[in-house]
Formats: sequence, C-alpha cells, structure tokens
Amino acid sequence: MPELRKDPITGRWVIISTDRQKRPNDFRIEKSALIGREYCPFCAGHEDMTPPEVLAFRNNGSAPNAAGWDLRVVPNKFPALQVEGNLDRQGEGMFDRMNGIGAHEVIIETPDHDKTLASMTEGEIERVLSAFRARVQDLKQDRRFRYILLFKNHGAPAGATLEHSHSQLIALPIVPDFVREEIEGARRHYADKERCVFCDIVKQELAAGRRMIAENADVVALAPYAPRFPFETWLVPRRHGSRFEEAAQHEFESLARLLKAVLLRVNRALESPSYNLIVHSAPFSEDAADAYHWHVELMPRLTRVAGFEWGTGFYINPTSPEEAARVLRDAKV
Amino acid sequence: MPELRKDPITGRWVIISTDRQKRPNDFRIEKSALIGREYCPFCAGHEDMTPPEVLAFRNNGSAPNAAGWDLRVVPNKFPALQVEGNLDRQGEGMFDRMNGIGAHEVIIETPDHDKTLASMTEGEIERVLSAFRARVQDLKQDRRFRYILLFKNHGAPAGATLEHSHSQLIALPIVPDFVREEIEGARRHYADKERCVFCDIVKQELAAGRRMIAENADVVALAPYAPRFPFETWLVPRRHGSRFEEAAQHEFESLARLLKAVLLRVNRALESPSYNLIVHSAPFSEDAADAYHWHVELMPRLTRVAGFEWGTGFYINPTSPEEAARVLRDAKV
Repeated sequence: MPELRKDPITGRWVIISTDRQKRPNDFRIEKSALIGREYCPFCAGHEDMTPPEVLAFRNNGSAPNAAGWDLRVVPNKFPALQVEGNLDRQGEGMFDRMNGIGAHEVIIETPDHDKTLASMTEGEIERVLSAFRARVQDLKQDRRFRYILLFKNHGAPAGATLEHSHSQLIALPIVPDFVREEIEGARRHYADKERCVFCDIVKQELAAGRRMIAENADVVALAPYAPRFPFETWLVPRRHGSRFEEAAQHEFESLARLLKAVLLRVNRALESPSYNLIVHSAPFSEDAADAYHWHVELMPRLTRVAGFEWGTGFYINPTSPEEAARVLRDAKV
Repeated sequence: MPELRKDPITGRWVIISTDRQKRPNDFRIEKSALIGREYCPFCAGHEDMTPPEVLAFRNNGSAPNAAGWDLRVVPNKFPALQVEGNLDRQGEGMFDRMNGIGAHEVIIETPDHDKTLASMTEGEIERVLSAFRARVQDLKQDRRFRYILLFKNHGAPAGATLEHSHSQLIALPIVPDFVREEIEGARRHYADKERCVFCDIVKQELAAGRRMIAENADVVALAPYAPRFPFETWLVPRRHGSRFEEAAQHEFESLARLLKAVLLRVNRALESPSYNLIVHSAPFSEDAADAYHWHVELMPRLTRVAGFEWGTGFYINPTSPEEAARVLRDAKV
C-alpha cells in the first residue's frame, strides 16, 4: 500500500509509492529511450495491454476495450496511489501519515501513435479537455478526494516513459503544496484588494503587451512576470472562474484553439521541446471561488540545469519573459 | 543586469539572469558532457582561466593566483547575480523587482582533477567546510545580503557543467522560498511546543532507529520521514544551533567525517550517483535562533522522472526512507 506522508517541518505531503519499489541497482539514471510503437500499450488493437477503460469516446458503436475508439481513459498500470481502501489517517510519534488512497489514470489522447497534442486538430484537443472534465466530474463524487491533478509529460526529459501521446490524472486525498501556495497567495490578494490576482494580471498584461504571446475571445497566453523556467507560458481564461471543470463549452473550444497555437509556436521556436503541461484548478474540498482563477501552465524542458532548482525550489532563469514572449510571438507558424 | 522578480501570486522570488541569455536555438537539451581535464579551469596551473581568487588555502608560500594551493575560492565566471551596484527596489504596476545584486562564487575543493568529495580525506573535506564558513563570515558583512546559499552539484544530472570537484555559493538580497518555508514551519512548531522541530526529530529517530543511517559524536545522518527523493539524506548536528557558520570546530570535524562515511555508502549502494548537497542555515537577516536548526541535505539524482515534480513541486518517491536507510546502513564500505 502506498503512503502519503507529511513533512513535519514544512507541512508538505509526499507520496511514498512503495508498490513501485525498485531495488537499489535499478536506480541508475535511466536511458531516455521511450517505449516506441512495437510494444506500445496505447495503440489501437493493443487494448488488452492496459487495465479496462473507465471512459472511451467511440463514434462507431465499437465494443469497450477493443479498437474503434477516438480517446480512452484507463487506470495507470503502475499507479502511484491505490483506489481501494480507506485513508486510515495515523500519527507515528510526531509524524503524520495516511494510506496512499487515490486514483491514477491515463488519458490516451488518440489511437494514432504518431500524433502529438500539437499536431491534433483543434477538435481533437477539445476532446482531450472534455475527457479531463468528465473524469474530474466523476471522481469528485468520491468524498475521500480533495484535489485532482491533471497533467501531461511530453518527452523523456519531461518524465514521459511512453512515446504515444497521453495525459495523466491523479486524484488525491490532500491538496498538494504547490496548489496550496497559489490558493493562499490568491486569498491574500483578494483579502487585501477584493479582486482576483489572476484577473489583475491579465488586465495589466493585456495593457502592457510585452509579455503577451497570443490571445483569442476567451483565453490569453502570456509569459508570467517571474517565470521559473525559460519560455514558461500560462494560458488564462479571461472570465473569472475557480475550477477548470466548470468552464463553459466555448471556453474549452477557445482553450483548445489557443493551446494548439501556442504549442505550434513553441515547437517552431524551440525545435519541438519536451514539456510539462499542468492544469491549475481550485480544490473541490474548499471554497476559493472569488479568489482563485483556474489556468493551464506549460513548461518546456529546455535546460539540463535541473538538479539544483529541483532540490532547493530556488529558480535561476536565463531567459526573461519579455524575450521569451517576443520569440514566441514572432515564431512563423 | 540580472533581476530578482517576485511572483505576485505565491510571493516566490526568481532570478532572471539575462546576462547568461541564450538564443532560442541554444535551448536544446544539452549533452551531459562535462568539461574534462584538458580545458579544466579548476586544475592547478590553470589559475588564469578563472577570475582572481577571493580566498585560497596555501601552505607553501606560493603566490596568489598561481599553482601551490590546496583550495581556491573564485568568483563564478558566469555569475547568476552581479556583485556591484545597488538593489534599486521597484514596482512595475502590480509587480515587484530589484536588481540582481549578489555574489556567486566557486569553491574549488582540490587542485586534483580526479579527486571527489567522497575520495578526499576527512581533513580535506573539513577544509572545504572551513572555506564555506570563511566566505559566509566575510559576505554577511555586506548589508545588502540576507541569505547565503551553499551547495554542490556533483555530476551532470545534478546540474554540474565541470567535472573537477567544486561547490558554489550564492549570496542573495532575499531569503529563498524553500528556506522561508522551513523557517516558518520550524517557528510554528516552536510557538506550539517551545521546542525545536529538528531536535525533536533527531531524538525520535535515534529512539526508533529505522531511518538512521550513521552517526558520530556530533552529527547524525538519517533518512527523513517524508523524503521527496529516493535516498534523500539529512546530516543534522545533535547540538541545537541555527547557523552553519556558528558551529564549533569539533562539529565541523564530525560533519566532515560523517559526510565522507555517508558518501562512501551512497557510492557503494547506488553506483556513485550524481547528487546535490545543500547547506540549510538560518538567514542572518532575522532571528530564528531557538526555532531553526542548521543541517545539510544530500539528494542523489537517481531517477529521470523529474519534469513533473519539478513543475508541480509535488513529489512521488518510489523508495521508502526505511528501505533507503537499511540499504545505506548495510552498504559494505
């Protein structure tokens, strides 16, 4: 059984995922070889290589767990958390732990091994977002969960182990530290000014222009003022709303359109880098409706200088957001 | 001029180090080739390849910036921060910035290209710690600085670009976020219990034993209860003290001895991995004497699955600290 453990100093929770335990000899830095086409469990016709699907979009009446799907969601075969059981919250002297209860699912975005999020049609990207929403709406019924993390690792340097385009979902009984920090910061701003900090940022950045990358009717793409990573990009809806899954259909359409446009620019300017994409949304266990503003963060993995930042949480970024935004604005796509 | 910028949501400061600006084409993931012996600026006889030394330990009356040294400290040739100038704190609409004023120095730990921290004698390691202390005591006189970060990146996956054994120092006009979190957590514990949280941890871990790795008269090495990384190891002095540079000489001796012992165990058990080593010490700009407890954190870089954790600050660790401590305790050295 995996465990959630709380650091007694910082209060940060981590998953100790012992079911994925490796022997010490297995801890060499892994080669960045991704699992390719031949043994790909995500390709059409290989449905028996994954656990049974929990959601699929099929337009031709094909049978579950057989070819004929456009998108499938399946439990992760090597989950970081376990879905059955109870939390069994416990103290161990001064320490706090609970069972590693949670869902860990994979969104297989396309049956086509060679398609990437950037090369999908806008409609296909919107379908991925719809699957995100459907799974969140289902899983938030489970009262054990407090947060659902939606993310995508593209490319080995970003943490992907499979080449075939996919995203992941982790439903958690705790709110992760990075979400907690954002929520608390947003609440401080709201308490001080009676305004959402993200709404303020969007307004100021639209007026200033220097850090704007692209925009459409519902969503803006900008380089944040204090980015941790070169070419870090935020996609923020214009309309205030705290939760991704409560966005309107036209906002999902606009997000899909803008995401494609931004990914094409990133691929053009930066030679199709690896990236992480993370949906930031308010926890459904608490009310942050006025203060928090859902958005998507895209982080290209460009520099190898990761160890120090990873260990300290202190970031040195060699590219200003003004320069990054200019490069992406100017990219010919 | 580099800049320090504050994220308006989380309050986290980052360095935008534009003097190290790269062109977009330069952002491919770099090859992990380290600069080797031939062009090594840290080898004896290559003193003209670095800026002039700010400190050197020489036992034979040799001239500054010439061969004959045992340890040299030089300004980083490509500094993330700039030492001359004033902070010029400014607002930019809702954003906050200041000039990237700070010191960025390199501690060249040995003239011998092939020696590593693990293969040095205990006396040589103690000399490295003495250099850390001497530089901190000098730089803390500069009232512009609030924190001095002492760290070591060993191996390319940990962020090193030079093979020759060295550590780094960054003096900052702000307290980095990861230090702030620890200080505040330690203060909460102290406010609640009138005890230092690190002292409590050491006491509990010595009694439990399961997460103990090694110990001597002054310092204990343990696997923390909620580690972010496999085989994360903390070296904590038994005696309470908030600042590294104020430790007693016998504590430095003991730390050097234990650090060598732990590195030898890590190298044996994990096939000489890359690692980051970070000194955690109280900021000299504020009083945390009762609540905070200086220590050293060692993080082997074992898994490639970095992108997601790096982007979210949410950690999934596949090895329990009990297992990691057992493996390191059992390592034959």
